[in-house]
Amino acid sequence: MFNTDRKFWGWGVESNAFPQPMLMLARAFLQAKFGVPPAEPRAVPSLESLRMPEPALAVPAAFADIVTADRYHRAVHTYGKAFRDVVRALDGDFSVAPDLVAYPRDEDEVARLLAWARAENVAVIPFGGGSTVVGGVEPDRETRASRAGVLTLDLCRLDRVLEVDRASRSVRVQGGTYGPALEAQLKPHGYTLRHYPQSFEFSTVGGWIATRAGGHYATNYTHIDDFVQAVRMITPQGVLATRRLPGNGAGPQEERLVLGSEGVFGVITEAWLRVQDIPRCRAACTVNFETFAGGVAACRALAQSGLFPSNARLIERDEALFMGAGDGTHHILVLGFESPSLPQGDKLEAALAICRAHEGKPKKPQVRNDGEGGASDDSADQWKQSFLRAPYLRDELARMGYISETFETCTTWANFPVLDAAVRAAAAEAFAHTTGQGLVTCRFTHLYPDGPAPYYTIIAPSRAGQQLAHWDTIKTAVSRALVENGATITHHHAVGKDHRPFFLMQNAALSLDMLRAAKRAVDPDGIMNPGTLL
Amino acid sequence: MFNTDRKFWGWGVESNAFPQPMLMLARAFLQAKFGVPPAEPRAVPSLESLRMPEPALAVPAAFADIVTADRYHRAVHTYGKAFRDVVRALDGDFSVAPDLVAYPRDEDEVARLLAWARAENVAVIPFGGGSTVVGGVEPDRETRASRAGVLTLDLCRLDRVLEVDRASRSVRVQGGTYGPALEAQLKPHGYTLRHYPQSFEFSTVGGWIATRAGGHYATNYTHIDDFVQAVRMITPQGVLATRRLPGNGAGPQEERLVLGSEGVFGVITEAWLRVQDIPRCRAACTVNFETFAGGVAACRALAQSGLFPSNARLIERDEALFMGAGDGTHHILVLGFESPSLPQGDKLEAALAICRAHEGKPKKPQVRNDGEGGASDDSADQWKQSFLRAPYLRDELARMGYISETFETCTTWANFPVLDAAVRAAAAEAFAHTTGQGLVTCRFTHLYPDGPAPYYTIIAPSRAGQQLAHWDTIKTAVSRALVENGATITHHHAVGKDHRPFFLMQNAALSLDMLRAAKRAVDPDGIMNPGTLL
Repeated sequence: MFNTDRKFWGWGVESNAFPQPMLMLARAFLQAKFGVPPAEPRAVPSLESLRMPEPALAVPAAFADIVTADRYHRAVHTYGKAFRDVVRALDGDFSVAPDLVAYPRDEDEVARLLAWARAENVAVIPFGGGSTVVGGVEPDRETRASRAGVLTLDLCRLDRVLEVDRASRSVRVQGGTYGPALEAQLKPHGYTLRHYPQSFEFSTVGGWIATRAGGHYATNYTHIDDFVQAVRMITPQGVLATRRLPGNGAGPQEERLVLGSEGVFGVITEAWLRVQDIPRCRAACTVNFETFAGGVAACRALAQSGLFPSNARLIERDEALFMGAGDGTHHILVLGFESPSLPQGDKLEAALAICRAHEGKPKKPQVRNDGEGGASDDSADQWKQSFLRAPYLRDELARMGYISETFETCTTWANFPVLDAAVRAAAAEAFAHTTGQGLVTCRFTHLYPDGPAPYYTIIAPSRAGQQLAHWDTIKTAVSRALVENGATITHHHAVGKDHRPFFLMQNAALSLDMLRAAKRAVDPDGIMNPGTLL
Repeated sequence: MFNTDRKFWGWGVESNAFPQPMLMLARAFLQAKFGVPPAEPRAVPSLESLRMPEPALAVPAAFADIVTADRYHRAVHTYGKAFRDVVRALDGDFSVAPDLVAYPRDEDEVARLLAWARAENVAVIPFGGGSTVVGGVEPDRETRASRAGVLTLDLCRLDRVLEVDRASRSVRVQGGTYGPALEAQLKPHGYTLRHYPQSFEFSTVGGWIATRAGGHYATNYTHIDDFVQAVRMITPQGVLATRRLPGNGAGPQEERLVLGSEGVFGVITEAWLRVQDIPRCRAACTVNFETFAGGVAACRALAQSGLFPSNARLIERDEALFMGAGDGTHHILVLGFESPSLPQGDKLEAALAICRAHEGKPKKPQVRNDGEGGASDDSADQWKQSFLRAPYLRDELARMGYISETFETCTTWANFPVLDAAVRAAAAEAFAHTTGQGLVTCRFTHLYPDGPAPYYTIIAPSRAGQQLAHWDTIKTAVSRALVENGATITHHHAVGKDHRPFFLMQNAALSLDMLRAAKRAVDPDGIMNPGTLL
C-alpha cells in the first residue's frame, strides 16, 4: 500500500536519519548548557513489540481493496508528531491505535466510507499528513469506549493538481497532495504556492486548510487561509462546496467554516488555491542586534511600514547558536524580499534603514535579480536547513531523555513584553518542579502591524520514564501563561486534543456554542474526529 | 433626540442638496443618451402625509428616556437607502415602519432592550447608519404579522473611540461611531482608519462590520474585515467578545462569525480596529485606455504584480463621462499609491510600465512626499467628488422617474468576460421588457490576484408609478445573471432582504444549515433582524 518508509515512532521517513555531525554539535551545546552529558539515545522499539489491541472492526468486504487492519499502517496512523507522541511511541504504547486505515481513491469512496461509518457507529479521523503536533489525529480514549471502532482516513491517493487557471493564477488541487508533490506539479507551469510550513514534506493541502497552517511569508499572506479561493468538504450530511470567488461579502465567509475545522465537520477533498509566479528577484540580509528588545522594536517598525518583507524572522541568540545560524553573540533578524519580476533591492534598503534606526547592524545585503537560486547569506542558509531538519533533531532529543517542546502564539506589540515575561516565569516555575533547569528561547515567525507571532522553544533535561510527566507540567504551565496573558494558544499549529482545554478558555463561550451547533448540522451523530477541537 | 436633519426619504441630510449645476449636466447627459428630456422631479411627501400604521407597541416605562414612537424617528428608521426604498418613500408608503426606535446609551441598555424584546416577542433590528442598499434594516412584513412588534436599535450614542494602543497601532471604538466621527477622533493621534465606503458619512463601525463593508484600498486590505482585531457583540444569549489577536489559528476564526452577520446574531457594540498612520507620501496617475479589455488586462497584471496600489479603479468611458471624470473618449484607470513615510514614485513608475505594456496611456504622474494634501490629477479629483455625491444624484434620478441601480460583484479573471457578457445580456433583455432602453456601465472597485470586483451601474428611463415593477424585473434579471455565471451576489454591499434569494442560491446548502444552527445558538427565539440574510 502506502507510506512504507514512514516512521511510526517519529518524524518523517526511516531513510532520512539526522546527520551525525549536527547531532554532535547539539549534544555539545546541551552539555555546555545544562552541565551534564546527554544520555545515550534509547532504542526504538520494533513494530512487533508495540502494545496494540486487536482491531475492534473487521475490514468491511465492500472496502476490502482500500481499507486495511495491518499492524504497520495502524501504528503509522496512531499518533501525530507531538513530543509526547514520540515518547509514547518509544515506550511502545499504541493502545489507542485506530482499528482500520482507509486509503480512498476518490471523493465517492470518501463519501461511502463516511456513510458506512455513520451506519456502524464508527468514529472517523481525517489524517492529512499526520504531522500534527497537537494531538489532532489520535483516536480519543473516550471515543474508543463509546463507539464500535475508529477508522482513520488517509487521502494520500488524492494527490493531484486537477486544473490550472492561468488567467486567474489559481489551481484546483486534491486534499491529499503533499507539499513536495504540489510544488512538483506546479513547477512546469511556472507556479509555486510558496507555502512552506516546517512540516512541508509531510503535510497535505487538506491538512493545511483543516489546521490553518502558517507558511513561508512572514507578513501579509501568513496562513494558508490567504491562498484558499474555494474548498470542497465531504461531511456526513453531504458535500459542502464553496464557489470560486477572489473576494466576497455575502454573509459570514463560507470558507471560514471549513478553514480550521480540524476534521470535526468533514473531510477536505479539494481546494482552489491562489498560487504565485516563481520569484526571480530576491534581496536578503541578516541583521545583528545587541538586545532582543532592539530587534523587537525594529520588527514592529517593519511590520507597520507597509514594506511586506517575505521573510522577517527575529531569532534569539541562544536559538541562533543552537540552530547553527550564529555564534551566539547576537540576536539576529533574517530579512528577505522577493518578487517574480520587480527588483527588491530598494525595499531591502528601506527595511535596513529601519533596522539601523533601531540599532540593528546589517551584514552584507544579497541582491539577485536573475532567478538563479536564492539570495541569502550564511546565517540565513544555515538557519533554513536547520529549520527543516529540526523535527528530526527533536526525535533524537526525545530519545536522549530531554523535554523538547515549542509554543507558538500571537499577541499585540503592547502586550508582548508582558507575555514574554509570563512565559519565561511559567517555564522557570515548571522547571523548578520537574527538570530543575531548562532553556527557553524565542523567535518571531510572522509579523503583523498590530503584533508579532512569537515562537518559544523549550528544552530541558529529563529522563526516560519521567518525560511525559515533566512535559505535561511544563506544557500546561506555559499554555496557561499564554491564554492568561492575552495571547492565543496557537497561531498556526492548530488545537487538536492537546490545546483543546486552552482553546475552550480563550474562545467566547457563545462562539463555541455556535461552532458546536454548526457541527451538529453537518455531523449529527458526532462521528467526525471526536475529542478534537470542540 | 437625534438624527433631526436626516432625510426620511433618501440619502443623507436635508441641508445637503445636490448641486444644481451638476444636476443640469446629468440631465443633459441623460437626454442625449435616451433621446427624451427627463421629467421634472416629483415632489417629496411631507412627514404628515406618510401612510404609516399606529405603533403596535407602547413605549415601555423602563425605557422611557431612550425609546421613542415619534413619527419622524419611525420614518427615518423604516427603510435603508436602496433605490426601491427611495421610491417607496416618495410614494409615501411607510406601512412597514418599526413600532419603536431605541437610542441606548451603553451596552447594558442594549442588553436590557434585547431581554425585554425577547420576553415580549418583539423583533429587533440593529440599524447601523441605515445606509443599507439591500434591505438590511427594513422590518419584515411576515415578522410584523407574527411578532408583537418591531424595535429598531440606533446606536448613534455609542460614538466614541475609547482606547488607543499606540504600540499596536489599534483603537477600541464603539459600534455606533460614524465614519467622520471616527476619523475626527483618530486625527489628533496621527491615525486614520482609511476605510471610506461610499456611505462613509452615513454609516457606522458596527454597520461596516455587520455588512463586511468594502473600503478605500483597491488591493490587499479591501474589506473592513482586514482591520478588525477583536469585536464585541451583544446577543439575546449574552455577550460574545473575542480577544485581541493580530493573528490566530485556533479553530474556525471566531470573529468570522460576527463579520457579515447583518444583525441576525446580535448587536455589535465595540471593536478593536487596526488603524493606519496618516499617509504623507503619495503618487498617483490617471491612465487612458482605448479599449476596456486593455484596461482589464492592465488591472490583472497590476493585481498580480505584488505592487499593492491603494487605488486602482478602472472606469468605463460612459461612466467616466457621466461622473465628470473624463470626456468620454477613453476608459480610465485611476491609479494611486500611498505611504506614511516611504516615497511611492518608484512604485507608480513600475505600475505605469505595466499599464504601458497593455497599451495604457498615462497622463502626468503626480508625486508628493510632503504630506500636504493628496496627489491626484483632475480626473481623479473629479471622480472622487462625484463618488461621494452619487447617492444624492441617485435620489434625484428616482424623483425624475429613472431606474438607477448598482450591482457589485467579484469573479475570477478567467470568468470576467463571460460574466460581463451575461450581465449586459440580462440587462438588455430586462430593458426590452420594461423601459425599452437603458445604460449599463462598469468599473472595477477592487482588484485581487485572482480576479476583479466589477461594479455595474444601470440607469434606465422609467416613470413614476412603474419604477418599482421595472426595477424589480431588472434587479432580478441581473442578480440572477451574477449568481448563475460564477460571481457573487455581493462583494461588499451585503445581503439584507433584497439579495437573500440569491445568497441562498450561491451558498452551499450545508453552510447555510451551519449558519442557521449557529443563529439558534445565540438567538433561540429568532428575534434578531428576522427575514434578513438567512
